[in-house]
Formats: sequence, C-alpha cells, structure tokens
Amino acid sequence: MKFIRVDMATRTVNVGDVPEQYAGLGGRALTSTFVANEVKPTCHPLGKSNKLIFAPGLLSGTSAVQSGRISVGAKSPLTGGIKESNSGGTFSQKMARMGIKALVVDGIPAEDKYYLIKITMDGTTLEEAPAETIGMGNYEAIQVLMKKYGEKVAIALIGPAGEMKLAAANISFRDPEGNIRSAGRGGLGAVMGSKKLKAIVLDDTGAPGVPIANPEAFKAAAKVFADSLRKHPVTGEGLARFGTNVLVNILNEAGGLPTENFKYGRNDWANEIGGETMTATIEERGGKVSHGCHPGCIIRCSQHYVDKKGKYITSGFEYETIWGLGADSKIRDLDLIAYMDHAMDDIGVDSIETAVTIGVAMDAGVIPWGDGEAALDLIQQIGKGTPLGRIIGCGAAITGKCFGMYRVPVVKNQAIPAYDPRAVKGIGITYATTPMGADHTAGYATATNIMRVGGFVEPLKKEGNVELSRNLQIATAAVDSTGMCLFIAFAILDIPEGFNALIDMINAQYGLSLTGDDVTGLGMAVLKTERGFNERAGFTKYDDRLPEFFDEELAPHNTTWDFTDEEIDEVFNF
Amino acid sequence: MKFIRVDMATRTVNVGDVPEQYAGLGGRALTSTFVANEVKPTCHPLGKSNKLIFAPGLLSGTSAVQSGRISVGAKSPLTGGIKESNSGGTFSQKMARMGIKALVVDGIPAEDKYYLIKITMDGTTLEEAPAETIGMGNYEAIQVLMKKYGEKVAIALIGPAGEMKLAAANISFRDPEGNIRSAGRGGLGAVMGSKKLKAIVLDDTGAPGVPIANPEAFKAAAKVFADSLRKHPVTGEGLARFGTNVLVNILNEAGGLPTENFKYGRNDWANEIGGETMTATIEERGGKVSHGCHPGCIIRCSQHYVDKKGKYITSGFEYETIWGLGADSKIRDLDLIAYMDHAMDDIGVDSIETAVTIGVAMDAGVIPWGDGEAALDLIQQIGKGTPLGRIIGCGAAITGKCFGMYRVPVVKNQAIPAYDPRAVKGIGITYATTPMGADHTAGYATATNIMRVGGFVEPLKKEGNVELSRNLQIATAAVDSTGMCLFIAFAILDIPEGFNALIDMINAQYGLSLTGDDVTGLGMAVLKTERGFNERAGFTKYDDRLPEFFDEELAPHNTTWDFTDEEIDEVFNF
Repeated sequence: MKFIRVDMATRTVNVGDVPEQYAGLGGRALTSTFVANEVKPTCHPLGKSNKLIFAPGLLSGTSAVQSGRISVGAKSPLTGGIKESNSGGTFSQKMARMGIKALVVDGIPAEDKYYLIKITMDGTTLEEAPAETIGMGNYEAIQVLMKKYGEKVAIALIGPAGEMKLAAANISFRDPEGNIRSAGRGGLGAVMGSKKLKAIVLDDTGAPGVPIANPEAFKAAAKVFADSLRKHPVTGEGLARFGTNVLVNILNEAGGLPTENFKYGRNDWANEIGGETMTATIEERGGKVSHGCHPGCIIRCSQHYVDKKGKYITSGFEYETIWGLGADSKIRDLDLIAYMDHAMDDIGVDSIETAVTIGVAMDAGVIPWGDGEAALDLIQQIGKGTPLGRIIGCGAAITGKCFGMYRVPVVKNQAIPAYDPRAVKGIGITYATTPMGADHTAGYATATNIMRVGGFVEPLKKEGNVELSRNLQIATAAVDSTGMCLFIAFAILDIPEGFNALIDMINAQYGLSLTGDDVTGLGMAVLKTERGFNERAGFTKYDDRLPEFFDEELAPHNTTWDFTDEEIDEVFNF
Repeated sequence: MKFIRVDMATRTVNVGDVPEQYAGLGGRALTSTFVANEVKPTCHPLGKSNKLIFAPGLLSGTSAVQSGRISVGAKSPLTGGIKESNSGGTFSQKMARMGIKALVVDGIPAEDKYYLIKITMDGTTLEEAPAETIGMGNYEAIQVLMKKYGEKVAIALIGPAGEMKLAAANISFRDPEGNIRSAGRGGLGAVMGSKKLKAIVLDDTGAPGVPIANPEAFKAAAKVFADSLRKHPVTGEGLARFGTNVLVNILNEAGGLPTENFKYGRNDWANEIGGETMTATIEERGGKVSHGCHPGCIIRCSQHYVDKKGKYITSGFEYETIWGLGADSKIRDLDLIAYMDHAMDDIGVDSIETAVTIGVAMDAGVIPWGDGEAALDLIQQIGKGTPLGRIIGCGAAITGKCFGMYRVPVVKNQAIPAYDPRAVKGIGITYATTPMGADHTAGYATATNIMRVGGFVEPLKKEGNVELSRNLQIATAAVDSTGMCLFIAFAILDIPEGFNALIDMINAQYGLSLTGDDVTGLGMAVLKTERGFNERAGFTKYDDRLPEFFDEELAPHNTTWDFTDEEIDEVFNF
C-alpha cells in the first residue's frame, strides 16, 4: 500500500510506504489517528499547519456491499476540533483498488492559483486546475473534469464555498452517475480551499485491486453480510422505498421533529414534505425512486428527485436537509427544497449546516418564515460571496453572532440536526458529547429511541440514554473505519450474524482473527484519540453541553433537556 | 451603601444592603467577583442567565484625583469569558456619591421594547426608553436624555450596535461636556441590548456624598498622590500635551507599530498620524488640546479634535484607535480617522476592535488598503445593520471567519491592540494570558518595555517579560478596583510615595490599615477569580496563545513570537 503526501507549499509529491502506526487502520480510524498525530491541535484550521487526509475504509475496494465510503480528516474550521467526514461516490473504492492507503495534503502554496492532484497508476502529479472550473458550480465542474480526465475518473472537489474558505464548505465527490455526494460536515472544503486545491482526480486504469488473504472466506462472509441487509426491514426495504426522508412523518409522530428553529417538536404539515409524498411525487413525474451512491450499494436510499417535466433536480435528497428547510424553516414545498438542495451541492456547502442556518436567519427576521424563494436566494448569495452569503456560508453559530441571536442550535459551533434532543434524548447525548460537534451520525440513538432497532430505550426519559449513546458512538467509530455505509448498523444491531460477517470479512481480507471485542476496542481507541486531540486544542467538558435554550419545554411532550453535567460526562467514562 | 438589582424579566427593582461578600470590594474586584459568583459560566452571553453589573471604584466619588472610572462586568459576548471594561465620564462619581455600591441588571423582558433605568435619591424606577432614542446615535441620544432628565445627569447608554447585540458593541457614558466615553471592550453593549436596556440615568441631586473615616489623613494623602502625578513626566506633561497618541512615533521608532494588519513593525508615514501632528493640527484650528474625561482628572489626556473650521469632531481620540486605522489599515489622514472615531462612538462600537477589524477586512480585499472613505462607510454600515456592517460590528474574529482569513490578530476572539507582541514582548504575554482577551490595559508592559517606566525590560528578548506582565497584571487588577484611571500607574511605578499615598487614601476613607502586600493580594485574588470563571466557562491554557501567524518575522527587528507554551503558562504561577 502507498501513503501519498502532497506538500502544496513546495509542490512536491512523496509516495512512500505506509508508516507503521497507520498500517492496520482505515477510514476514520486512520484519518483521526493521523490528525491527532501530525496536526498541531492549536493551529489555525486555514493555515499552513493543518493537514487534510483522505482515506478509504478497511473494506473499501472489495466486493463487500456498502463499502464505498471515503473518510476525510483535518482540524475543522467550523468546530476548531478534530473532524472526520465521510461520503459515498466512487473515490474510496478506486483509491483502495489503486493500493493507496491515504492521501495527505499539506502546506499552502505561495501563489494565488488553484491546483489539481491527479493520481494514476503511473504516479501522482500536481498541476494547475483548469481555469474555467474556478468559481464554477460543482455539477458543471465535474463535467469539465470528466471531459478532460476521462469519463470514469473519481473526483473530489470544492465549489465556490470552499474556494472562499467558508466554514460550512464541504468536499464533493462524483457519484457513479456524475452527480454529487458530499463529505458535508465541519467545513473540510474550506481546508481544501485554504490549500488552493480545487480537485483531486483518480484514474484507476490498471489498478491491481485489493488483495484478499482468504478469498473463499471473504466471499462467504460477504454473502451472509449482504443477506442480513436484505433481510432487515429498514435496509432491505424502507430506505429504498422512501429514502431517509421516511423519517419526517416518523419524527413528527414522535414529537421530535424540530420546527421553527427548534420551537416545537411537531407540526401539522409534515406530510407535505415527508418521504411518502416525495416518493409519490418522484413516481408520478417519472424520476428515480431508488439508487445507490456508490457501486455495490444494495440499500439504495438515494433517488433522483425530478421536476414536473421529469428533469433531474437533485439526488441524495436526505431527511436532514428536507427537515431543516421544510420543518425548521417552514418551507412547505418539496420542489423548492429540492432546488435548494441542488444549489447547496453545486456551491459546495453542508446542507445540514446551511438549512439550520436558514432557520436561524428566519428567526432573526432576515427573511420571512417559510419563504422558500428568499431562502434559495440566501443560498445563491453564498455562491456569490455577498456579505450575507458569507455569513450564511459560515454556518449557524456565526449567523447567530451576526444577528445577536440567543436561540442558536449548535454544539461546538456545529449545527444540531433533525432530531430534537428534548424528545429523542439519546441523540441529544450524542450531540453534546461526540468530538465532532453536533452530529447525528456519530451515535445514531434515534434508531433505538424511535425506530426500536437494536432494542428500545425510551426517548423522553433520561434512563439508559447515556449508555445507548456511548455504545453507539463506539460502534460508529468502528464502522466509520471500515468504509461501510453507516446504515449497515440498522441490520447488524438486530441481526447478530450480520455483525459477525462484518468481522469475518475484515479477518478474511487481512488474514486476522479479530473478535467483536477488538472492534469495540477499535471504536473506543478512535474516540479517545479524537477527544485527546480536542483536549489539546482547548476543549473541555464544558464544550460537551447543549445550548441553554433547550431548557425551554418542547411541545407536544413538554419535555426539556434535563441531564445534569455529571450525567453527560459519564459518556466518556471508559 | 445600596446594592440595586433590576430584574428586566419581571421589571422589578430591589434595593438592598450590600451582600457581605461584596462589602470590601469596588470596581473590577467587585464586578469580577460578582460575575464569578452569580453568573453561570456556560450561559449564553445574550441570554437570560447573564447579568450586567456597574460598580464605581473604592475611591470613586471622593476628592481623590483620577478616581472617576466606572467598571462594568458580565460574561462577554465577544470572548465568551469574564469581562470587566471601565470608562471615564461622570457616572462613577455620581453613583458613589449616591451611596450605590453596585447596579445589577438581570433577566430579559418578554416585550420587544426598550427600557431606561432612572436612579435618583428618591428611588430607582424602570420606565420605557424615549421612543426617539431607539436607533439614534449616542451623541444625539445623550442630548435627548439630558433634555428630558436634566442637564447634569450621568448617563450610560447603548447605541445602534448595542441594540443589534453585536459583539463589538460598547457601553457609552456621558462625559462632563456631554460627549462620549466608553467601556469599549468585550461587547458589553450587546449584553445591555439583550436586556432591552437602552440607558441608565443618574440624578445625584441631594446625594450625601462619600463618607470618609479619616478626612484629614485622606486630604493629606490625596495631595501627595496628586503631586506625584504632577511630578512625573508622563502624567504631568506628556499625556496632556499630545494625548495617548504620543505613542505613534514612539512605537514606530521602537519597531512595534503594527502596520498593514500586523505585517510590519514600522512605516514611513507614522508622523502624519502621530500625536505631534495631531496637537499641532488642533492648535492651528483652535480646538482643545487637553481636557479630562471626568471631574477631578489632572492628567487630561483627552482633547477636542476639530475640523478646519474649528468645529468639534471627536474627543478621547486615542492612540489605539488612530493606530488601528492609521497604521494597521494605512489610512494616512487624521481628519478621516477623527470622523471614524466619531462614528464609532456614535454607533457605539469599540474603536479598537473595529479598527483592527477594518485592517482585517482590507487584508481580505473587502476594501482597498488605506481607503478612509471606504472604511468610514464600513463603520456607517454597522449602524445601519447591513450584513457587512454586522460582520464588521462583530469584530475581527468573526470578520476573519466570514472572509476565510488566516492572519487574524485576536486572542480569545478579542482584537490585539496597537503594540506588536513580537517587538514588545511583555505586552504580548499580557495579550496571551489576561482573562480579558487581548487587552493592552490589563498589564501594560509597554510602559517598562518601551517607555522605561518602572524600570526597563528589553522588549525584543524574552527574559524578564513573563515576570513583568505578571506583576503588571496583578497591579492593574488592583488599580482597576479603586476607580482610578490606569494612567496613575506611570507615576506610582516610579514614585514610591505616590503608591503609598494611594493606599493611604483607601485606608483613610474606610478606616483600614492595608499595606502594599494587601493591594498585591487583592490584585492576585481578582485575577484568580477571573481565571476561575473562565475555566468554568471552558477556557484552558490553550486559549492563552497568540495566533499562529506571529511566527512570521517582523521587520525591522525580524523578531518572532518565540515564547514556549511552558514559559507562557508561568504567568499564572502564583
């Protein structure tokens, strides 16, 4: 395996062996260990001392289903802490099959021009980015790059938001159809922008593929694993039918659908923006109800949302984005929300951060509640770099500051997603304590609180939720290291042979004999590594708190966020 | 003595005795102890749990010269830590003579309207603020309030920036001539704005004055004290002649005048904006070269800067403001800088934070370097609440974020003032370590590094500067508790009988027998109290660091910020 380092300051490429301390790691375990080892925790996130690392997961590039997630790591410009953000697309699998353990981008060039890293089996080169892509939207830029570098290349790139180094800028990845997937959270696009790196192109022609120590065992385990996903109602059916947006009505019913900048937990228009309505609309218009974000996906939670003439508007149209605009900002129009999703992908900003920010801006009176046209204009202003666009593009915390707001739903400066912590208490613990800043994917307690996956813990009460979040955060840190889509958790939490098959695949690939305890140990180690970085960056237990306004009662259950500090601090007691 | 608490949520006033734990305290010792005791460190600075406290110093209201500083405390919306900011004007002395130990403003009203607190010897009332003052500039609002409440009232108020709760908003105080002094730093105006408190008016008609336990001893000590100030070249002559702006040429000569957003330590146009030029201009135009910001001031460092027709533009025209616009932002025009100073006072924003922010905005390409008209427009946009104005009005850190900047001169999110830490290393240690965020007044090592007051410590070397900053921070915390202008330090550092006379005055007033060690002990206690609050708000030693870019060499001495973390952390080793 190769470990590629590109120093943008000197424009030199170093292709070396994998350093020993990174040898057994992949995905989040690798990116977070690397950042903790090699990035100065107190450095400026946009400065020369930050480093950006891309790493496929341990199983990426194999025939295992769902193994195509690419992890990206750096110190976050949004949170000031460590960040791992992962994405679908074709990048991870191609990278793994090319034998690349990780790509590290270091330093900042003196010249004010943008570069592109091209990696083929012949080598890694740094060249000037095509001039026409600068300032260009991601959809068009991907087409330009495919035209220049080949129809099958994998692409990572930043849009205008990343070029402007805005704290909500994401890194976009080409998906199999030439559309966009994103490593959304934490502003990693701003780090890439600070390094003047417009794009990375991978051409895997002639790639040797991933060696498998025990191919027969791998094949057998991969089949059990895939069968488990097919068997589970969520991964086998629900996600393909309604996408993640199936959650709108579920959360609304549960009273945990944050509405009007987290003022209410339920509203009476949720169905207008829900997954059932979305799917019916797509079917009626001849769109695509279900497809995967990377080759080998069998869950197929993505879709093509189309306009009335059947023309593509957006894909990867996720619950959290639709919630943020549809419920939290009260824009009762799926079409408008889809155009906004397209615009956010095109400009290259995190759609969760941006949607929550629009709710905050509406609460501040910047634009009227529910005004989708005005919200779309705000998003377009991000791309244009107007002062208001820059405020929005820096996320909810900065927007709250600029408009003197008190009710700003963030933890560690990252926007709180689509599950109200007062009504889904397990996820609230995750928001408060994950080293990532508020992030539902870091320990998705909603699964157990609301969907009764992996057992059931009462969402409205405190009991059991600290333990639930802890266990899920540990498991997630491990899953994020495999290159697996997080949604496999629905199945493996309920189906023990699916969980075992995951470990069997890793063992078969690498000739290991890991146990479930080893996997738990890996998850714990990753979390401790991440917390260690954050501590050295100045974080304390006082950063593991939800905003003060969650002491307000949330209708309809009239619950508050009532964990004591001591209870919250028990999460990392391992 | 009375301890007045106003709860804006219930619109109730409580006038009580002074709680025992605050009895011996005044000024900063009182405000910081109160904030540490009664404000939840993790609260949102603009929320219901923050409290704003006004307290005169221990000697305020007496006949002691220079004793008219009013201290204001709260959790800072700019830094997120504890904040004491003090100001001249007539507020402190009237408050003390009315027998008021402190005024605490708590809670937030439900109604969206502005209030005014009126305090007379008949009582304290909360009434609606005159409607015409809302959105009005401070200069005009003071006239409106004087017309309504009397020509001699003391006034504290916020301008449009405070109403908008911007993080650089200050609290303004009427000076003896009806002009403006400010508790500038840390955004306390935003806290006042969050409480919907437009102004506080004090009418001291019938006030009993300050009781003195031993009047003869007080009088004798006060004379020695005043004589010491008159004797010292800085307080007796220099400050009256050229104002604080005498420092432009001194710092430029020393190579520590930050120029072009801290890129250089010297420039070749400094004299155009220096104190000598300023005074010559004022004299030529028939302005006022020297006057005091509060009754009883004999240092008289303020002035009326006037236009070509002799018409008042601004007063309290300080070195740090002139530096920030004239050197750091390269605006080589004192008249334009004076108009900007007027505008900042009128809108109610900290002129240091704002001037440094303009330098950052120029570095980001928002407006051209040195363009004074464009800079004035930026300031006016703050008052109008445009998106760009809100960015600027939130200070340098937020502006740096919105424009993706790396070179952002802040510590704890507060802008670094007018002395480059690479060339004046003692003040750099103060910036890094004071609980206030970057603040030259918290331990003014420039005095000893550059002006050779209180001895001499080499400014370009590390040796002795940690100790120097520590000692000055301790002394300053004590001085800030007396109500004394900080400039007395120049004299009492060099003239032992002046220092003794200060203690003698306190002893004579209160019937005590404090020693110099007690004063040092008070200073240490205040600093520890403040650091304790910050620790409970989530601050660590990692927040006691200068921005990374100070590793760049500074011309002309080509020095860098080279303290190790361990050296910096020695400051609070007491």
